[in-house]
Amino acid sequence: MRFERVAVIGVGLIGGSFALALKAAGACSAVIGVGRNADNLRAARECGAIDAIAADPAAAARGADLVLVATPVAQYAAVFAALAPALGAHTLVTDAGSTKRDVIAAARAALGAKLARFVPAHPIAGAEHSGVRAARVDLYRGRRVVLTPLAENDPADAARVEAAWRACGARTSSMSAEEHDAVFAAVSHLPHVLAYALVHELAGRANSAQLFGFAAGGFRDFTRIASSHPEMWRDICVANRDALRAELDRYMAKLAEIRARLDAGDGAALERIFIEARAARERWLNGEFDADSKP
Amino acid sequence: MRFERVAVIGVGLIGGSFALALKAAGACSAVIGVGRNADNLRAARECGAIDAIAADPAAAARGADLVLVATPVAQYAAVFAALAPALGAHTLVTDAGSTKRDVIAAARAALGAKLARFVPAHPIAGAEHSGVRAARVDLYRGRRVVLTPLAENDPADAARVEAAWRACGARTSSMSAEEHDAVFAAVSHLPHVLAYALVHELAGRANSAQLFGFAAGGFRDFTRIASSHPEMWRDICVANRDALRAELDRYMAKLAEIRARLDAGDGAALERIFIEARAARERWLNGEFDADSKP
Repeated sequence: MRFERVAVIGVGLIGGSFALALKAAGACSAVIGVGRNADNLRAARECGAIDAIAADPAAAARGADLVLVATPVAQYAAVFAALAPALGAHTLVTDAGSTKRDVIAAARAALGAKLARFVPAHPIAGAEHSGVRAARVDLYRGRRVVLTPLAENDPADAARVEAAWRACGARTSSMSAEEHDAVFAAVSHLPHVLAYALVHELAGRANSAQLFGFAAGGFRDFTRIASSHPEMWRDICVANRDALRAELDRYMAKLAEIRARLDAGDGAALERIFIEARAARERWLNGEFDADSKP
Repeated sequence: MRFERVAVIGVGLIGGSFALALKAAGACSAVIGVGRNADNLRAARECGAIDAIAADPAAAARGADLVLVATPVAQYAAVFAALAPALGAHTLVTDAGSTKRDVIAAARAALGAKLARFVPAHPIAGAEHSGVRAARVDLYRGRRVVLTPLAENDPADAARVEAAWRACGARTSSMSAEEHDAVFAAVSHLPHVLAYALVHELAGRANSAQLFGFAAGGFRDFTRIASSHPEMWRDICVANRDALRAELDRYMAKLAEIRARLDAGDGAALERIFIEARAARERWLNGEFDADSKP
């Protein structure tokens, strides 16, 4: 598995790390980058993530055998529209968006018959920092990448895109876009909203300085994801809002259950919830729930 | 400030670290420990946290000039009742409970006129491990201890207890027990309940293995406090249930607000919430809200 020319649309943490890892694996000859920030693109060339800078997505994609779309998701519609005429008959496209149904809808609207060569992906890797200066050759090593292949995909094309992510060191899984968006609404999007909500609620109080003044380590870890990128999380929440609303409703029902236990002073029921939650988390930490990955 | 004989009732992480730190500071001559677990008490003596083991709280407290109560809070009523007849005219008592109104009520019910020499305290220090083997001489170094002195306390007694905690390396603050319980309901008790609730909600689903299988680093940090001790958190929740219920109600109102924004597809309003939350958290991380500590 080797690509001659890889185009990376959006050379930040995610796109830059993909380029570095593919090159380190000897899986591509040249990477062409494109992005909004000239300074960032220069840094991408200096650190060897990309070999050349293209003026726009079409120029980057022309002659490429693999294109990675790694911009913020809100730009995908425009990026796909710009890419469509430039994609060759055998150019594969993948992406790194955190939601998949909306990404696929955008691709479907713009790519026409070339949709068949778009194999959507979501690398479960990120960091608190962004931009190519935060990119790392090992960002994907041991991390999971969820592929949501389309009915239109040729299995050989899907396998080639999967092999590219695996060349970066990732463990891959496949599921439908619907399943993906439901799973990540529960284990990622909801916790982000919950953390933002807690900090926002406390910050709006008259005594917020006193409250934050006594917040300690548990609070710091609980709210770490409330330091995530607001624009990115706005887009994720809006794109996945039906699944996220369903998760919020389930969670609020659980809080109402706990509140009723508190009302009743039912310590035994509370302790049971805490014991079961801790036990589930211990099993998770012990790796009992590791998703299957292809060997 | 020096104590001749310090009694530690409950020689675990908290009590053991207090003993080690007082000794290291040269602030006490001997520590007598008492506890339910003989093996743990032997370990406490071997590591030098205590010099002798007493058969019961009264025996430990007899002749002591300072007593620290550091058992689980549910045992405080029995401990105070056992201590009351053994406390000398000048014996000071402090504690390490995470809630303060219930602790003070238990002391008031058991200590009679000796209540005046009880200076309640809450060290904001803990760890995922418990028992004296997890104790550390520097557990309190730079950590906050909140004192909630009583109207009955002689200011000189309160100052002496405060000096003991400061000898352990802690920064001290004082507030009323009511204020303490309200503040910690918001910044500690609520986040613990929220983390337990999320894990419990996901663990109860038919596809829980799949969900946990895709949970990643953000989920791990968000739910770290759901690995806390269930019995301890049961007691905290029940003891502080009125303040905790008020916090849950405020938080659920915030979630309802966010849900309404999702319903409306109002990405701008969501982004504003996320931006404000992140900014507040950054200010907190930068130390802008550090509670005043006495010099």
